[in-house]
Amino acid sequence: MTPIRPGGRTANVRAAVLSATADQLIESGLESVDLAEVARRAGVGKSTVYRRWGTVSALVTDLLADMAETSLPRPDTGSLAEDFRSIANLIQRTLADRRQGPLLAAIIAAATCSPDTARALATFYSVRLKEFAGTVTDGIARGEAPPGTDPSDAIRYLSAPLYYRLLTGNGAPDDRDANRAARAALAAIAAGVFTG
Amino acid sequence: MTPIRPGGRTANVRAAVLSATADQLIESGLESVDLAEVARRAGVGKSTVYRRWGTVSALVTDLLADMAETSLPRPDTGSLAEDFRSIANLIQRTLADRRQGPLLAAIIAAATCSPDTARALATFYSVRLKEFAGTVTDGIARGEAPPGTDPSDAIRYLSAPLYYRLLTGNGAPDDRDANRAARAALAAIAAGVFTG
Repeated sequence: MTPIRPGGRTANVRAAVLSATADQLIESGLESVDLAEVARRAGVGKSTVYRRWGTVSALVTDLLADMAETSLPRPDTGSLAEDFRSIANLIQRTLADRRQGPLLAAIIAAATCSPDTARALATFYSVRLKEFAGTVTDGIARGEAPPGTDPSDAIRYLSAPLYYRLLTGNGAPDDRDANRAARAALAAIAAGVFTG
Repeated sequence: MTPIRPGGRTANVRAAVLSATADQLIESGLESVDLAEVARRAGVGKSTVYRRWGTVSALVTDLLADMAETSLPRPDTGSLAEDFRSIANLIQRTLADRRQGPLLAAIIAAATCSPDTARALATFYSVRLKEFAGTVTDGIARGEAPPGTDPSDAIRYLSAPLYYRLLTGNGAPDDRDANRAARAALAAIAAGVFTG
């Protein structure tokens, strides 16, 4: 595993292995992920997977690192309200996506019984929160949010209703959910809920 | 299975079987739940469990029905803000409880790959939402929330940040999270986010 994705064969192997890991997670969850089967599906040698990753936990951690690296940059429309609508739409589309939605749900499910996966998941969300936090800091600078607003908390409250909908058995969130999530988080910001 | 819990032996058998089901879910997730093992742990005959429940799915559905039946009634303090703080504290304590928290996480995890469990979980939350909705309807009647506020949506937004925290690998929510969740939901209600 390398923190910076190198080009060429190494990158291709990683992409194929992580894609096969994601397929297995979506199909039948963490317990079904098997290094030999991942190698077979990825079309790479078993020894490569054992040498570079070694454990299922390392595979899932690297998959989450890759998802964080390849996620879209934050919106920067010049308006906090517009940025929040855009982030809510991005999360909604991700959770409603036929591959990304079930993959995130499978990883969240795995995290409930695997402390390693829980740590990797927390790291993934902390990378995404850092990326999105700039919308709130810029909003504060423009006078659109009270000084002292905690950017991470504000982004968490924006995301939470969309994840809650996905995970409580009611299916993926839709456009209306995204719109309400953005308006609710903006109202809480304006009321000073995330300061101090 | 009977909708109304009968007294005596039938009730004792159900309680023992559902408790054994919960134990297995907490220990190792839905896939590990086994009717014969549930019967053994509950100290009841295998044929009773096979005859009365028959499938793992029926056991988990009945467990969720029992959790909904035995949940606490809604607070009724005469103030929407106070009721919301009380509900947020109740959810926070449940998710931080050493047995209830892991049990709910295990059921949510199971729901991501079992449509039957997802349906039972959605029913469980809809029962809880109906119970809590009265706080919002009463709040509207007292002029503490805009007319037309959707009670279920308001309660979902109150719950979501607490579940989100539990499920994104950051551990159970604490008092501060409960307080922020209540204030954020009240700000969104006041801003009219849940009307129309």
